Amino acid sequence: MAQVDTNIDFDRARRCGQPEAIFAQGKTPEQVARIARDLYAAGNTVLATRATPEHHAAVAAVLPTARYHDTARLIVVARQTDTGAGTHSPESAESAAPTKTGAEPAAARTIVVATAGTSDLPVAEEAALTAETYGAPVMRLYDIGVAGVHRALAHTDRLEAAGVVIAVAGMEGALPSLIAGLTACPVVAVPTSVGYGAHFQGLAALLTMLNSCAAGIGVVNIDNGYGAAMLALKILGVRS
Amino acid sequence: MAQVDTNIDFDRARRCGQPEAIFAQGKTPEQVARIARDLYAAGNTVLATRATPEHHAAVAAVLPTARYHDTARLIVVARQTDTGAGTHSPESAESAAPTKTGAEPAAARTIVVATAGTSDLPVAEEAALTAETYGAPVMRLYDIGVAGVHRALAHTDRLEAAGVVIAVAGMEGALPSLIAGLTACPVVAVPTSVGYGAHFQGLAALLTMLNSCAAGIGVVNIDNGYGAAMLALKILGVRS
Amino acid sequence: MAQVDTNIDFDRARRCGQPEAIFAQGKTPEQVARIARDLYAAGNTVLATRATPEHHAAVAAVLPTARYHDTARLIVVARQTDTGAGTHSPESAESAAPTKTGAEPAAARTIVVATAGTSDLPVAEEAALTAETYGAPVMRLYDIGVAGVHRALAHTDRLEAAGVVIAVAGMEGALPSLIAGLTACPVVAVPTSVGYGAHFQGLAALLTMLNSCAAGIGVVNIDNGYGAAMLALKILGVRS
Amino acid sequence: MAQVDTNIDFDRARRCGQPEAIFAQGKTPEQVARIARDLYAAGNTVLATRATPEHHAAVAAVLPTARYHDTARLIVVARQTDTGAGTHSPESAESAAPTKTGAEPAAARTIVVATAGTSDLPVAEEAALTAETYGAPVMRLYDIGVAGVHRALAHTDRLEAAGVVIAVAGMEGALPSLIAGLTACPVVAVPTSVGYGAHFQGLAALLTMLNSCAAGIGVVNIDNGYGAAMLALKILGVRS
Amino acid sequence: MAQVDTNIDFDRARRCGQPEAIFAQGKTPEQVARIARDLYAAGNTVLATRATPEHHAAVAAVLPTARYHDTARLIVVARQTDTGAGTHSPESAESAAPTKTGAEPAAARTIVVATAGTSDLPVAEEAALTAETYGAPVMRLYDIGVAGVHRALAHTDRLEAAGVVIAVAGMEGALPSLIAGLTACPVVAVPTSVGYGAHFQGLAALLTMLNSCAAGIGVVNIDNGYGAAMLALKILGVRS
Amino acid sequence: MAQVDTNIDFDRARRCGQPEAIFAQGKTPEQVARIARDLYAAGNTVLATRATPEHHAAVAAVLPTARYHDTARLIVVARQTDTGAGTHSPESAESAAPTKTGAEPAAARTIVVATAGTSDLPVAEEAALTAETYGAPVMRLYDIGVAGVHRALAHTDRLEAAGVVIAVAGMEGALPSLIAGLTACPVVAVPTSVGYGAHFQGLAALLTMLNSCAAGIGVVNIDNGYGAAMLALKILGVRS
Amino acid sequence: MAQVDTNIDFDRARRCGQPEAIFAQGKTPEQVARIARDLYAAGNTVLATRATPEHHAAVAAVLPTARYHDTARLIVVARQTDTGAGTHSPESAESAAPTKTGAEPAAARTIVVATAGTSDLPVAEEAALTAETYGAPVMRLYDIGVAGVHRALAHTDRLEAAGVVIAVAGMEGALPSLIAGLTACPVVAVPTSVGYGAHFQGLAALLTMLNSCAAGIGVVNIDNGYGAAMLALKILGVRS
Amino acid sequence: MAQVDTNIDFDRARRCGQPEAIFAQGKTPEQVARIARDLYAAGNTVLATRATPEHHAAVAAVLPTARYHDTARLIVVARQTDTGAGTHSPESAESAAPTKTGAEPAAARTIVVATAGTSDLPVAEEAALTAETYGAPVMRLYDIGVAGVHRALAHTDRLEAAGVVIAVAGMEGALPSLIAGLTACPVVAVPTSVGYGAHFQGLAALLTMLNSCAAGIGVVNIDNGYGAAMLALKILGVRS
Repeated sequence: MAQVDTNIDFDRARRCGQPEAIFAQGKTPEQVARIARDLYAAGNTVLATRATPEHHAAVAAVLPTARYHDTARLIVVARQTDTGAGTHSPESAESAAPTKTGAEPAAARTIVVATAGTSDLPVAEEAALTAETYGAPVMRLYDIGVAGVHRALAHTDRLEAAGVVIAVAGMEGALPSLIAGLTACPVVAVPTSVGYGAHFQGLAALLTMLNSCAAGIGVVNIDNGYGAAMLALKILGVRS
Repeated sequence: MAQVDTNIDFDRARRCGQPEAIFAQGKTPEQVARIARDLYAAGNTVLATRATPEHHAAVAAVLPTARYHDTARLIVVARQTDTGAGTHSPESAESAAPTKTGAEPAAARTIVVATAGTSDLPVAEEAALTAETYGAPVMRLYDIGVAGVHRALAHTDRLEAAGVVIAVAGMEGALPSLIAGLTACPVVAVPTSVGYGAHFQGLAALLTMLNSCAAGIGVVNIDNGYGAAMLALKILGVRS
Repeated sequence: MAQVDTNIDFDRARRCGQPEAIFAQGKTPEQVARIARDLYAAGNTVLATRATPEHHAAVAAVLPTARYHDTARLIVVARQTDTGAGTHSPESAESAAPTKTGAEPAAARTIVVATAGTSDLPVAEEAALTAETYGAPVMRLYDIGVAGVHRALAHTDRLEAAGVVIAVAGMEGALPSLIAGLTACPVVAVPTSVGYGAHFQGLAALLTMLNSCAAGIGVVNIDNGYGAAMLALKILGVRS
Repeated sequence: MAQVDTNIDFDRARRCGQPEAIFAQGKTPEQVARIARDLYAAGNTVLATRATPEHHAAVAAVLPTARYHDTARLIVVARQTDTGAGTHSPESAESAAPTKTGAEPAAARTIVVATAGTSDLPVAEEAALTAETYGAPVMRLYDIGVAGVHRALAHTDRLEAAGVVIAVAGMEGALPSLIAGLTACPVVAVPTSVGYGAHFQGLAALLTMLNSCAAGIGVVNIDNGYGAAMLALKILGVRS
Repeated sequence: MAQVDTNIDFDRARRCGQPEAIFAQGKTPEQVARIARDLYAAGNTVLATRATPEHHAAVAAVLPTARYHDTARLIVVARQTDTGAGTHSPESAESAAPTKTGAEPAAARTIVVATAGTSDLPVAEEAALTAETYGAPVMRLYDIGVAGVHRALAHTDRLEAAGVVIAVAGMEGALPSLIAGLTACPVVAVPTSVGYGAHFQGLAALLTMLNSCAAGIGVVNIDNGYGAAMLALKILGVRS
Repeated sequence: MAQVDTNIDFDRARRCGQPEAIFAQGKTPEQVARIARDLYAAGNTVLATRATPEHHAAVAAVLPTARYHDTARLIVVARQTDTGAGTHSPESAESAAPTKTGAEPAAARTIVVATAGTSDLPVAEEAALTAETYGAPVMRLYDIGVAGVHRALAHTDRLEAAGVVIAVAGMEGALPSLIAGLTACPVVAVPTSVGYGAHFQGLAALLTMLNSCAAGIGVVNIDNGYGAAMLALKILGVRS
Repeated sequence: MAQVDTNIDFDRARRCGQPEAIFAQGKTPEQVARIARDLYAAGNTVLATRATPEHHAAVAAVLPTARYHDTARLIVVARQTDTGAGTHSPESAESAAPTKTGAEPAAARTIVVATAGTSDLPVAEEAALTAETYGAPVMRLYDIGVAGVHRALAHTDRLEAAGVVIAVAGMEGALPSLIAGLTACPVVAVPTSVGYGAHFQGLAALLTMLNSCAAGIGVVNIDNGYGAAMLALKILGVRS
Repeated sequence: MAQVDTNIDFDRARRCGQPEAIFAQGKTPEQVARIARDLYAAGNTVLATRATPEHHAAVAAVLPTARYHDTARLIVVARQTDTGAGTHSPESAESAAPTKTGAEPAAARTIVVATAGTSDLPVAEEAALTAETYGAPVMRLYDIGVAGVHRALAHTDRLEAAGVVIAVAGMEGALPSLIAGLTACPVVAVPTSVGYGAHFQGLAALLTMLNSCAAGIGVVNIDNGYGAAMLALKILGVRS
C-alpha cells in the first residue's frame, strides 16, 4: 500500500503548539519512515511513539540522526535547527542516566514525572522523554506509591514547587489522589496497564483516577505517556 | 406467601461463631418479624440488616426490645440472657453518640472502623454496630481519606495498635491501601457505592481495593458493612 | 448521627489553592449546613455541589447570604472578606444572565466553557459558576457540537485566545477532539450522562474523550463540572 | 473433517443481491478452497475475507485466477463471465494504486470510503475492494480525522456528491458524526480496533458511532469493512 | 436559564436533507417550546422526540397545530406550507389507525417498519411517524419475531419489494438477521430495551444486530426509532 | 394504539407443546386483556407473566375466572375444558399453601423447585405455578443454599428421585452446582437478581451458573422462572 | 508437582449418571495421563476435553487404545467392558465420517446437533462425540443458520422428531430461537466464540441465547460442547 | 534503564510485619536480581512472585541459595539468619512433597490451603509456599470443589480446627461459601482465572466470592495467591 499517501497535518505545530507525532503501532516500518521523512523535511522535530526497533531501523535509514529509546519505545529525530535543551535532555537521559532527584530545585516550569512502582517506568519514560524532546525540564520521582506513603511525603517540597505533576500508576492507581492533596499545581494522571486479574488491563487504575476525591486532576488514556506530556506542555505553554 | 416457612439455620452460631442474621431487603415486614421471633425464641441475638422503619415496626410488635439504628439501617434485639458489652455498646452508640476517638487506647482486640468521607457513614455504622452487637470494642476514625493524607497519619498510633481495621471508602477507594501501609494488622476493605459517573455504583472503589499494592487486605462486597464486621469478628475470634 | 463530627480539611486552601468544597449528594441538609457553617467560620468561601433546594434551605438558615443556582445545583456563600470578581460574577450570572459571547475578547486568563448541546447545560454551569466563584473570568460557548461543525469554527478566534477550554459533551462526546485541534491551550474534557441506550450513562462520551487522537486533553469524571473547573483554576494558577 | 460438507447458500445472490462470501478466519485452507471452488463452479464471484496467504495458496491451487490483497486480507476470484468494472477495479487497485482523490468527480453512484487515520487502512481497503469487486465505483479519502477538521472540510464537495459514505475510524471514532453533518447521503460507520487502553479493542469507537448526534448513520461491527461495503451496495441497489 | 439562547442549526435541512429535530428528554417544556417556535418560524417542520405531555402542552401554547403521538412520544408541527402526504399520514395514523398490512403493495420507495413483538411498538411508531412526517410512505409489519418464523415468511413478498426495512426488536434481537436473508434491500436495525435480566437494557439485542451473519444491515442506537427513520429517509433520498 | 392488532401465534401449542404466554411487562392492561381474551377464545390456557394487579383487573373484566398470584406476579386463566391437575394445583397453592415437602414421594415426573434463600421466592413461585398450570406435579424445597450445606443434603433422596430440578438462586448462585453433584437428573438453573453491590442485578449468579464445574445444568435468563418451567416441561415431555 | 495426588470423584457415575471427565486445558500431559489411568483402572470410560496432541501422546503411552479427535480436541478411551454403540459411533465418526443427515429417521432418543455455520464445527463435534461416547445416537445438521432460514426449515421434520436438539452458534447466535420455535423438544443452546469485534469472544451469542423469546431453551457456557452433551444425556436419561 | 534506582521500602517488615516482596512480572531479570540483592543485603528474606526461570537464573547469579518453585512461579531466598520452620517448609515441599493431609492435626495456628480443582494448583502453591516461607504451618486440602460436596465434608474436622482457610477456586468459585458455612475461622477467598468462555479470566469466580451468602470471607485479587498468604499471616499475627 506504499502508494497511498498519508495526509500529514503539517500545520499542527503552528495551530496547536507541537507538530504531529507518529503513532507507530499498527503501521509498517516503511509507513513510519516515510511520514518521518516528510515531517522532518517540513522542519519538524520527529517523534514516533510505540515504536519497535524495526521501526527505528527504517527511520534511521532515511534520517541517520534518529535515536531510539527502548524503555519508552520512542524514536526521536531532533529538527535540523535544534540546538537547545529540548533535544539535549533525552540524549543525556540515555547516555548519562536521568537523575531521579536532580541537584537543581524544581521550578515553576518543571514537569515532575512520578510513578507508583518500577513497572510503570516505560510509560513514565515515554512522558518524560516526550516533554524533554519538546523543551521542558523534567524531574523524575519514581517508585513512590501509596502503600509506603512516606516515600511521596519525602518529596513534598518538590511536588509543591512543580509546574505540573504527571502521576503514573498501575495497580490501584491511587498516586494522583495522594499527590493532588499535597500540591496546588495541576496533576496529569496516567493509568498504566500494570497489574493482573481484576485490573482488567488498566481499567481499575483508570477508574480510580477518574473518581479521585482530590481536585485538580486531568486523566489521559491508559499507558498514554505521550498524551500526558502533551497536556503538561500545553499547561505550561511550551511551544516547540 | 405467609404459609411458606423459612428454613432457618438455627445451628449457625455453634458452627460458625455468630447466629444467622436477617437480610431484610426484599423481604416483607411480616417475613422479617416472623424470622426474628423464631431466632429470638431459639436464644439468639437478632440482627436485621438493610431494614426500613416498616421492618422495625413489625419486629417491635412481636419483640418490644427491638431497637432501630436509622443511619445503619439495622434492627437489633439483644438476646434474652445478654448482659454484657455486646448489647451495651450499640445502645450507648445511639444515646450518647459513638465517640470517634475514645479516651481508651486501641488495644489488640479493638476493631478500628475508618472511613474516607462523611458519605460513607451508613456503611461504616452498619459495620461498627454489628461488631458491637456481637461484643467487640470499636473505635471510629471517620473522614480520613487519602486526599488529605495528614488526617490518617495523625492516627498512626491507633492504626498500629488495632486488632483489625475496617476501612470503608467510596470515590477512588484508596484508603485501605494507605492504612495497610501503616499497620501490621489485617485490613478489611469495604467499597461503598458513594460516587457518581465512572464510579459505576461502587465498581471503581471495589477494583481499587482488589488491586491494592499493599499486602494484608481482604475485600468484601460493595456497601457490605455487615460482612466486614463478621469477617473482623472471625479474625479476632469473637464468638457470640 | 449529628454527634459525629466531620473531619474538615481546613488547611486545604493553603495547601492546594482552593478550600474544601461540600459534595452534598448523599448528605443530609443538616450535615451540609453544619459543614458550611464551619468552613465559613474559618474564613472560606463555601461551595456545595449536587445540592437540592432542601440543602440550600438548611444552609441559608445558618448563613443567610447563601445563594442557590438551580441549573447547576450549586450553593455558594461568598467568604466574609470577599469583595472582588470571584463572588460578583456568579451573582451577576443569575441576575443579568451569563452573556454567552461577551463583548470583551477572551484573554489568556479566560476559561472558555463550551458545550455540544443544550442538555449539557447543568454540568457546564456547574463548571462555569465554580470557576467564577473562585475568581476566574468565564466565557460561555454553548451548543457548538460536532454535527454542525461550522458552529465551533465560528468561534476559532475565541478558542485560540483562551487560557483553558472546558469542553462539555454527552452523546458521542467528540467536542473536545474538535476543539483541541483548533487551539494550543489545554482542554479539560467533561463527559456528560446526556444520551440513552448504548450511551450507558456517560460511558460512551467518557471513552471517546479518553481516546481522542488530538493532544492536550485532560478528562474528568462524568458530569463532574466542579472538577473540571478546579483543574482549570489550577492550570491558570488561580488561588482563592 | 473434510468429509463434512458445508451447506452453501447458492441462492443468496438471487435473493439478496450478492452471493455468499467466505469468512476465512477460523476455517482451514482446505475448507476455504473447497467452498471457493463450489461457489465458483456455481457461477459466483468468490470473495473470502480475513484470509491469510495460506488460505490464498489453497484457493489458488484450485482457482488459478484467485488474487490476494494483503492489506485488506481479501481473496477475490472474478466469476467466469465477468468482464466489467467490478473485477477490473480491484485489480488496478493492486497494480496501479487506488487514486485517493480521483480526477473524476464523485457521482450519485459513487461510494466514498473515508478514514480518520492511516492505521484504519486495512479495514477501509476491505470495504473499498469489496465494493469494487461487486461493481461499484469507489473514491478513497484517507486520513481526514476530526483532530484536524480542515482536512475533511477540504472535501466537502465530494462528500456532498457521494451516493454513500463509508466512514472508517478507530481512536475516538468521531469521523462519521463530522461527515454526516456535511452531507445528505447516508453514512455507513465502521469502528476499527485501532487504539489502545480504554479503547477496548474498538468498543470506544463503536459506542461513539452509535451515539452520534448527527442523523443518517448506520453502524456495522468493529473492523467489518466487508459488511460496510455490502450495506453500501444494497443502499445503491447494486446487484452482482 | 431562560436567558441562555440555544444555538439552533437552521441550515440543517439544506445541508443534510431534514431540519434539526428536538431531543426533548432532559430539556424543560419551556426550552422545547422556545426551540420549536424558532424552528417553525424559520419555515421548518417541527419534530420533538422523547416528549412528554408537558412538553406538548408548552409547545401547543405557542404552536396550536402541534400534535402529540403518545405511543411514540413525538410532537409534530407540520410546517406552514405543508399540504402533502408527509403531514397527512401521521395524522391519519392517530385518527384512523395505521393499517398494518395496507391494501396497496409495497413499492420501491416504501419503508417497511417491522417489529419482533408488541412491546417494541413505541420505538417502531417513533420510526414510522418520523418517516411519514418527512413524507415517506410506510408499511407496518408488527409482531413477526423469529420464534414463530412463519409470521415473517408470510410477508416475504412485501419484504422483497420494500425500499428499506426498519427492523425493530428487543429480547434476542434476531429479526434483522432473518429479514436481511429474505430481501435485497438495506435493513436498518433498531435494538430496543425490551427485555430483562441479561438483556442489560438493550445491550443484548444491540450486540446481536452488530454480529449478524447476514449482510446489508446498518445498526442504530438502542430505542432510536427517530435515527432509524432518518437513515431510511437518506437511503431513499427523501428531502423535506 | 388499541387499533394495532397483535399477531398472536395461535399455532404455538400444537407446534411447541404449550400455547403462547403473555409477557405483561411493558404492555398496557388493555393490550394484555385483549390478547388474553383472544387466546382463551381459541381454546388455550392463558398465562400472563410479570403482571400487575392492574393487568389482572383488566383481564378479569373480560375473563372472570382469571386468578392472580401476587408473589409470582402471574395471571392464570384455565382453559374452558380443563378439569385436571394442571389448573387444580395452582389454585390450591393459593388457598391451602404449597406444601414445601409433600407427603407423596418425588417421582420421575416431578419437578423439584429449589431455592437458595427466602428472597428467591417470587421467581421460584413463577416457575412452580407455571409448571402446575400446564399440568406437572411440583415439589418445593426452599431455603437450602450452599452456606448451610446440610439443608440441601437433607433432601438428597428427593433430589435423586426428581425428574427435573429447577434450582433458583441469587447472591453467589452456587445452588445448581451443589444439586447437580447430588442427582442424575437435569438441572435448570435460574439466577435471580437478589443481591447488591457486585451482584450487578443478577450477573454474578448468572456467571456462576454458566461456569459450573458440575455437568447437566441448563441456564435460563435472570429471574426467568417462567422460562425455567417451560424448559422443565419440555424435558418431561408434558404437553398441555 | 507429580506427588500431589488428585482427588478423583470415582463415585460420580453412580451418583450422576456419567463418570468424571478430564478438563485437560491447564493441566500437564503427565497430570492428564495419570488421572486417565486411574479413571480407567476404576472401570470408567475416559473422556478428556480441550486436549492437545501432547496430552494424547501421554495418555496413549499408558492407555494404548486412547483415540484423539482433533477437530473436537477430545481424547476418548472406551472402558474395558464396552462393546456397544457408545464407543462404536465416535470411532466410525473418524474412520467413515459422521453422516450429517443419516438414512435412519430421527427418533425420540436421538440428539440432533445443529450448527449455524462451518466455523462452529469444533464445538459441535465436541458435543456430538461426547454424546456418542456415552451411548446416545446423534444426527448432525450443520450450517443451517438464520441468515438463510430455508436451510433450517428443510429439516423441520427431523427437528420435530428429535429427543433433544443441541444448537451451536456463534456470530449473532439466533439459531436456538429459530429451532425452539419449530419443535416441542428441549433445546440446549451453545454459544461459540466464533465472531469478531463486538462479539466479545462469545458474549454476544451468549446474551442472545439467554434472551430468547422462544421457550424451552437451556444455555451452557461459551464453547462448552461437552457440557451441552452432558445435559442432553441427562435429559434423555442415558446412563453410561 | 539500569541506572534508575528502585525506591525499595526497607522499613516494610518493621512497619507491616513482612518485608517487601518483588512482583517479577513486567520487570527484567536484571531489575529483579538487583532488588533481590539489595533486599537480602538488608537482612530480609527475599520472595519474588510471578517469576520465570530467567528471573531465577539472574537472581541465583548473585544469591546462590535462591530456590525456584516452578508450579508456584516463586523465587525464595531465605534470609541469612534463618534457621527455622519458615524456610524449612518450602524446601521440604519441593524435596519431599507437600503432604496434602498431614499426620499432625490442624491447630489454631495452621493455615489450610484448599482448592476446588487440580488446575488451581499454581495459585494455591503460591499461597502455601509464601505462608511457609514466612514461618506459618500449612495444611493442603486440594480438589474438594462443590460439585462433589462429600469431598469437602470429609475434612470438616480439619476445617473447623484451622486458624485460617485460604480457599482457591476458579470455574464457579463456590468453594469459599461452602467452607465458610462449615467453620468459625476466617476464610480468605482467591478466585483463579481457571475457566473459559463466560468465566472472563476469573471475573465469574471473583463475583461469586464477593457475593457469598456465608459470612467471614475476605476476597483478594484474581490469581493472587501471594496476597492471600499475606492476609492469612496478618490474621494469625505471624511476623517474619
